[in-house]
Amino acid sequence: MFAPLTESILYTDFYQFTMAQVYYRLGIHERPALFDHFFREYPDYGSHQAGFAVNAGLEPFIEWMRQARVEPEHIELLRGLKGRTGKPLFDADFLDWLSRHGNFEALTIRAVPEGRVVHPNTPLTVVEGPLAMAQILETALLNQLNYATLIATKAARVRYSAQSSLVLEFGLRRAHDRGGHAGARAALIGGADFTSNVAMSFALGLPPKGTHAHSMVQVAMALGMGELGAFEAYADMYPDDCILLVDTIDTLESGIPNAIKVFEKLRRKGHRPVGIRLDSGDLAYLSIQAARMLNAAGFEDTIIVLSSELDELVIWQIITQIQEEAPRYGVDPDALIKRLTFGVGTRLITSWGDPALGGVYKLVAIQEKGEWVPAIKISESRIKTPNPGRKRLWRLYDARGKATADLMGLDDEDIAAMEPIILRHPADGTKWRSLPREGTSWEELHVTVLDEGRLVYDFPPLEELRRRAREDIERLDPGVRRLVNPHVYHVSLTPRLWKMKRDLIRQARGEPETE
Amino acid sequence: MFAPLTESILYTDFYQFTMAQVYYRLGIHERPALFDHFFREYPDYGSHQAGFAVNAGLEPFIEWMRQARVEPEHIELLRGLKGRTGKPLFDADFLDWLSRHGNFEALTIRAVPEGRVVHPNTPLTVVEGPLAMAQILETALLNQLNYATLIATKAARVRYSAQSSLVLEFGLRRAHDRGGHAGARAALIGGADFTSNVAMSFALGLPPKGTHAHSMVQVAMALGMGELGAFEAYADMYPDDCILLVDTIDTLESGIPNAIKVFEKLRRKGHRPVGIRLDSGDLAYLSIQAARMLNAAGFEDTIIVLSSELDELVIWQIITQIQEEAPRYGVDPDALIKRLTFGVGTRLITSWGDPALGGVYKLVAIQEKGEWVPAIKISESRIKTPNPGRKRLWRLYDARGKATADLMGLDDEDIAAMEPIILRHPADGTKWRSLPREGTSWEELHVTVLDEGRLVYDFPPLEELRRRAREDIERLDPGVRRLVNPHVYHVSLTPRLWKMKRDLIRQARGEPETE
Repeated sequence: MFAPLTESILYTDFYQFTMAQVYYRLGIHERPALFDHFFREYPDYGSHQAGFAVNAGLEPFIEWMRQARVEPEHIELLRGLKGRTGKPLFDADFLDWLSRHGNFEALTIRAVPEGRVVHPNTPLTVVEGPLAMAQILETALLNQLNYATLIATKAARVRYSAQSSLVLEFGLRRAHDRGGHAGARAALIGGADFTSNVAMSFALGLPPKGTHAHSMVQVAMALGMGELGAFEAYADMYPDDCILLVDTIDTLESGIPNAIKVFEKLRRKGHRPVGIRLDSGDLAYLSIQAARMLNAAGFEDTIIVLSSELDELVIWQIITQIQEEAPRYGVDPDALIKRLTFGVGTRLITSWGDPALGGVYKLVAIQEKGEWVPAIKISESRIKTPNPGRKRLWRLYDARGKATADLMGLDDEDIAAMEPIILRHPADGTKWRSLPREGTSWEELHVTVLDEGRLVYDFPPLEELRRRAREDIERLDPGVRRLVNPHVYHVSLTPRLWKMKRDLIRQARGEPETE
Repeated sequence: MFAPLTESILYTDFYQFTMAQVYYRLGIHERPALFDHFFREYPDYGSHQAGFAVNAGLEPFIEWMRQARVEPEHIELLRGLKGRTGKPLFDADFLDWLSRHGNFEALTIRAVPEGRVVHPNTPLTVVEGPLAMAQILETALLNQLNYATLIATKAARVRYSAQSSLVLEFGLRRAHDRGGHAGARAALIGGADFTSNVAMSFALGLPPKGTHAHSMVQVAMALGMGELGAFEAYADMYPDDCILLVDTIDTLESGIPNAIKVFEKLRRKGHRPVGIRLDSGDLAYLSIQAARMLNAAGFEDTIIVLSSELDELVIWQIITQIQEEAPRYGVDPDALIKRLTFGVGTRLITSWGDPALGGVYKLVAIQEKGEWVPAIKISESRIKTPNPGRKRLWRLYDARGKATADLMGLDDEDIAAMEPIILRHPADGTKWRSLPREGTSWEELHVTVLDEGRLVYDFPPLEELRRRAREDIERLDPGVRRLVNPHVYHVSLTPRLWKMKRDLIRQARGEPETE
């Protein structure tokens, strides 16, 4: 209803335009500037907190950027805005400039690729280019990248707790309007195997997945066919793809017995029934009972899809409860856990407990007479002060191949020349550690995606992004990976960057040099 | 990047199509069916819970529905899907039917208008029409309407706690991708006065609002102009619309003194400075100090915009703290509270604490030989059992004009003929109350929006929706309106509907008649 307006460069906050006009009036609107996009804290879900995040959203964001245009009608909308005295807010010369330059074609983007594990206070995306347009870009960048990274992170946690079971993304109905589409893609990057979202499945080249809903059973009941009639109709239609939802009336008394009757019929006709879905009640208890009943009827191979308000902790609890209780009912817990599939909806697509990643977009440098001048913002706590300047970002691995720290340095620093490699705490001047070069390996995390608007990066296919996420998570220390109370991963500064930051803070505060 | 695929009828969950094909095979795909959309519980933010909700999202949803089409390419995508044995999942005859009927033109929609206060377990939207397409509609309906109602509700709470102050919606950067646009509209319906979202402001005919960001001050600092230089540049550009963000370096030591210098210059030139913005720190304390300093300089009329992780409780706390502490600093608390403006971002646009409304879409009736047969689903708790059948929804008011209950009855019931009006608890058979007709007034809440696909409703302008929300909230009992631990609003059934529901449950369970 609101597109294409909402897909244009008006997809931003109003102050970006008022500031852009100030830059224009100062004659610095085309001055090269550098903005870092980073988040300050991992998602904190209240009872549990992430120890890592999974970067996502880059490709759709870049695609949006490359097509976003200012149209004459947008200029006229801005021209019509009046201030308190009734005078136009925007002057004709600025609007004329904007009508000619109101796109993102002059911007350069370096970024951490999608699917990579990322950590706080490190630049995930670096935007370089004319100040005014880099400023206007802020809102859409944060809107798209914050959410995608939030959901890829949540999906990675769900994936971790679901062990080797399939994870299906089922959240569109509870997602935030069209955000659900971007959320499905991010979930697939972070750890979901498939999604029920038909449009996004096709857009990404995956088959959409699903079972059936209660309504199909209700229809059959209302028309006098009963639950059994509904199951038979579904099995007739999909004899080799038959998953039956068994909780419309009573799971143990009606649903599972009826499913077994239908499965027996399928078996007699030479088909292999796929399984059942449980969508309410005590899912751990019910899946044990379902397994017991299915096993007794000779359907040990059928899967059991669980859904209903699942997240990583609920899945963990279900698995733990099965391990503890299944033997009491003669059910092998490991075999049962292996046949589970998790349909995860609301709590994945909304990142329940922490529905926003606090990603920010901060000016870190601007050019003056062809030189980059670092920029600082200090009013908040020391740890929230952004790391200034044009930077490089490395990930360091120890001899076991485990990631041991992310290190930021100045653009002209060469990690290969450091011996030892000194890692300074980003805020606390008393904390550092040193790594011997021997036994330490590293990689640079940024790639150049846009070079003055020109796409210079091949976006990898989804499968590649998913593989990266799995591999990066595998290379984390288990303590960092765990679901509750994770160990803190180190994010550090090189001594030169650390000193520059300290000096800038002192300078801005008017403090004396003491060292 | 993914539109138009994501705007087509593929904007749904996969099981809608697999079920649609079962209906097709049973020959009931065009059977008139009735689905109710309702939510079961008010948003519960953890430390506080809503006592009412504000309905929103209808107009954009209907607009989406009316243009959603199945295209030949969508049919081919579905045709390409294979089951486990490699056979196509969808048959040619079903796909042929879908290619000819895959739109929502045969559906009738009755709904509670946007802006109305709504309550749990009452049908907010009623979809009537051919079973298969009504089924396929489910996901997009829930996706759009759940989120809009969630955010309109949150905005109403923020509005309530902000008293007479302006509320600005600032959340796009932390919203869930494009969901932020729908969220801005919903926030404006529920209680926000303006939004910083430029595209949505223009789409809705409102001026976008904002101030400036830290980056403008940082640019000026890096270029040697300092914070004062940034403020002067902004004031030169917007002498009559000057709001300055004062926390980039140090709010009390630098930001406010610099703002006052600039304001004095503006005053000398005959302009009226508008105000300052505080975006970090103890906002209650800082706003008292800011008021003290601004007052001392003769700027008693300037506004103070507060932002940074605000929600209804934080605003309430800020106001309470100002009331308690301001007198100690010689600041009149009431005058200070009146000059506050609240910029509310993340916690409004994500409905922090409860980021999803649990709205569902349940089959309540289907036609058999031209008669409506009520449908039931009973597996979960009694209170979660949907109210079956084709229903009417009334709101009852007491002699004071306060809403006292929402009452659902059967389609052929006439409230005017009831004496007294008996309200039965939807789940507990032992609870009812009776209202005398004398002194009780009522209105029917549903309007017909689409009549077999034809738009028969004039969508009111935004202003009208906002007025409705204000008036409906005004007509709630203060106990229902409060932010924490609200009084429970009554949602009731007529005796006839209650009896039909009870009989259906017994019938489905195979229980004997005992009454």
